Amino acid sequence: MSLLKSFIEVSADSHFPIQNLPFGVFKPSEQSVGRVGVAIGDFVCDLSAISDLALFEGPLLKNTKVFHEDSLNSFMGLGKPAWREARNTLQSLLSSENPTIRDNKTFRERIFHSIFTVIMLLPAKIGDYTDFYASKEHATNVGIMFRGKENALMPNWVHLPVGYHGRSSSVVVSGTNLKRPCGQSKNDADVLPFFTASKTLDFELEMGAFVGTGNDLGQPITVQNAKDHIFGLVLLNDWSARDLQKWEYVPLGPFLGKNFGTTISPWVVTLDALEPFICDAPTQDPKPLEYLQENGKNTYDINLTAALQTKNMTSPHVITTTNLKYMYWTLTQQLAHHTVNGCNMRPGDLLGTGTISGPTPDSFGSMLELSWKGEKTIPLVNGEERKFIQDGDTVVLSGQCKGNGFTVGFGTCSGTILPANK
Amino acid sequence: MSLLKSFIEVSADSHFPIQNLPFGVFKPSEQSVGRVGVAIGDFVCDLSAISDLALFEGPLLKNTKVFHEDSLNSFMGLGKPAWREARNTLQSLLSSENPTIRDNKTFRERIFHSIFTVIMLLPAKIGDYTDFYASKEHATNVGIMFRGKENALMPNWVHLPVGYHGRSSSVVVSGTNLKRPCGQSKNDADVLPFFTASKTLDFELEMGAFVGTGNDLGQPITVQNAKDHIFGLVLLNDWSARDLQKWEYVPLGPFLGKNFGTTISPWVVTLDALEPFICDAPTQDPKPLEYLQENGKNTYDINLTAALQTKNMTSPHVITTTNLKYMYWTLTQQLAHHTVNGCNMRPGDLLGTGTISGPTPDSFGSMLELSWKGEKTIPLVNGEERKFIQDGDTVVLSGQCKGNGFTVGFGTCSGTILPANK
Ligand SMILES: [Ca+2]
Ligand SMILES: [Ca+2]
Ligand SMILES: [Mg+2]
Ligand SMILES: [Mg+2]
Ligand code: NI
Repeated sequence: MSLLKSFIEVSADSHFPIQNLPFGVFKPSEQSVGRVGVAIGDFVCDLSAISDLALFEGPLLKNTKVFHEDSLNSFMGLGKPAWREARNTLQSLLSSENPTIRDNKTFRERIFHSIFTVIMLLPAKIGDYTDFYASKEHATNVGIMFRGKENALMPNWVHLPVGYHGRSSSVVVSGTNLKRPCGQSKNDADVLPFFTASKTLDFELEMGAFVGTGNDLGQPITVQNAKDHIFGLVLLNDWSARDLQKWEYVPLGPFLGKNFGTTISPWVVTLDALEPFICDAPTQDPKPLEYLQENGKNTYDINLTAALQTKNMTSPHVITTTNLKYMYWTLTQQLAHHTVNGCNMRPGDLLGTGTISGPTPDSFGSMLELSWKGEKTIPLVNGEERKFIQDGDTVVLSGQCKGNGFTVGFGTCSGTILPANK
Repeated sequence: MSLLKSFIEVSADSHFPIQNLPFGVFKPSEQSVGRVGVAIGDFVCDLSAISDLALFEGPLLKNTKVFHEDSLNSFMGLGKPAWREARNTLQSLLSSENPTIRDNKTFRERIFHSIFTVIMLLPAKIGDYTDFYASKEHATNVGIMFRGKENALMPNWVHLPVGYHGRSSSVVVSGTNLKRPCGQSKNDADVLPFFTASKTLDFELEMGAFVGTGNDLGQPITVQNAKDHIFGLVLLNDWSARDLQKWEYVPLGPFLGKNFGTTISPWVVTLDALEPFICDAPTQDPKPLEYLQENGKNTYDINLTAALQTKNMTSPHVITTTNLKYMYWTLTQQLAHHTVNGCNMRPGDLLGTGTISGPTPDSFGSMLELSWKGEKTIPLVNGEERKFIQDGDTVVLSGQCKGNGFTVGFGTCSGTILPANK
């Protein structure tokens, strides 16, 4: 079988070949309204235009209005058969063999926008955002730093995917700058806390899974069915103010140390696009309880990097390289666990994986781990160094799967830290 | 000044006299669409009808469509001047002295519905739900039970209002039944967890504050301005599965032990209606950091009860009596703290106070405290007893402020626990 090709020219290292077709929400210009698109090479393909041109001819999407909305929620809520129908239709329409759009200048002008000029919006209205803590390497590193080697992992960690509720209002799309947060901090040697701008601001390299179809309150999603409920994945930076978090988080968990902002990439890569990269998750020992047991391959081989660009650099420089496949608890286990008590999911809910750290020190997913609590410095390419994020620093996450002759990528998830309020 | 009276007859102990006028969202029948109303005596006054009849004549609400929506979010987002204009207009229109509606049968038929036949909906689309832990008595009780008397309160507790993010999808309106949740639990003596329906299901007697107007990301709401951002209060039952919570909550806080359901009362009582009941909060020692310092009276004297009705009873029986005024951290401090790091609020966001326990054992706001971890039984009026909630039990929260000749009440917040999934 020869490789499927689009009539749009796509370079071999582009994140967005016809094999990918990630969904996002964009505006062609500041004045226009948001609508759904897919990325193809250096272009965004406007699905509201394709719909207006009556080119969606399948039974589920014929006459649909979901691509005219400024979020993916309605499309997500249609379910996997509709997601598949969209993907199949688009792969056919964009194929180098199909003249329908290829040879119609009017169609092409209505449908394609330069990816460099469109304005990307949040892909979904996120009803609830949950962040897990599913990387054993990350949980162990943090545990060693704060509780010592003997008690690094809490007893529950190997039995369930630990997670907590995050703040959905402050999930922002890549490119949104964030102010350094202020709040309470306390030095170990002191009795009283003080008010401060965070001195130990960090990123967390994560991925986020968008729930496509949800479940009714009281009706769990089984681990076997979970995959069909997940629409796709994005990159996620869970910005974290370590000093605020440390003082506030006992006993009810992270709050102001996290909820000042969470950045996600704008393009949602579907599980169907990731299917060629499916692989085994780490062996789970002890074996989890029955409701978390699954067979077969349940994770994806996705190379992930975090890069830092200081004010003195002209481009971001990679400071860590990791992979989704290191993650101990799978996305499907996370979703099954989250709903086992009957908790209801809605289309557009976002599940963060937690920081994805690999086994070696150059694969840790946060500066807390890379600088080992600030005990060492992280060298940068231009001779600068960092322990945590400084004002003006930009953090850029990236992710890609290397296929045979093509790349399925996530683009980037980027944000710059501005000075704190005075 | 003689007491303001409505032409609708309202008994002295009704929760909904003309002095209250709480806002809610209702449907006259199953087939009709949701719209905004206020409760008055045994009636619901349809604000979409009042609007259609062009009786909102003030500058902010003339020609408004916000009361035709099936949530209060848009009305909340208009801000305090609009909330006041609505209240003033309605107090005038419903006054016994005003013939406009009183003497117009057609108007009356369009505007009023029996409160016993309408269907109440959630008052708002809740973007984010946060639960605080702001009662010193509650935090101390729980601390003593789990960590002993010496370390009952964590060091941060007296310096900041501890809070965590809850699940907004599973916030339900009073009258919604909930299944007993299942999940993981572990006995202290064992190494391995097991799967179970919760054996120690509890309620938490709380109040919830609805954010009216929000703030932009990065722009905190000061404690001085916080009151103007709060639309009003409801009763809130934070159902809690103690056994699931105990095993899962370290180190990132409550998750499945809470997110299977949170019940709120349908009528939002505005801060203007509560103003006659404003009172001093407990003295704060140590004095909090400057961003949490406020002057004057900052809480409300609201009597609260929780009642239990078993399958063998014909009505609920009060098992605890407490008051919002016992709460250590005020609503305004909670909102200021929540946003001090720049976290953004949106209209309709919900802030739970945390369990409101009073100083005496008959004023504790949860069965965990009333039964002291199950060490003693809670006697019920018919000779039954409880340590935690059993299948078929109904928990009914109620709240009211006693004025001079009138009551400003919250109605009830009720839910029945159904058996777990098999
Ligand atoms: Ca995280
Ligand atoms: Ca609570
Ligand atoms: Mg965050
Ligand atoms: Mg709850
Ligand atoms: Ni939410």
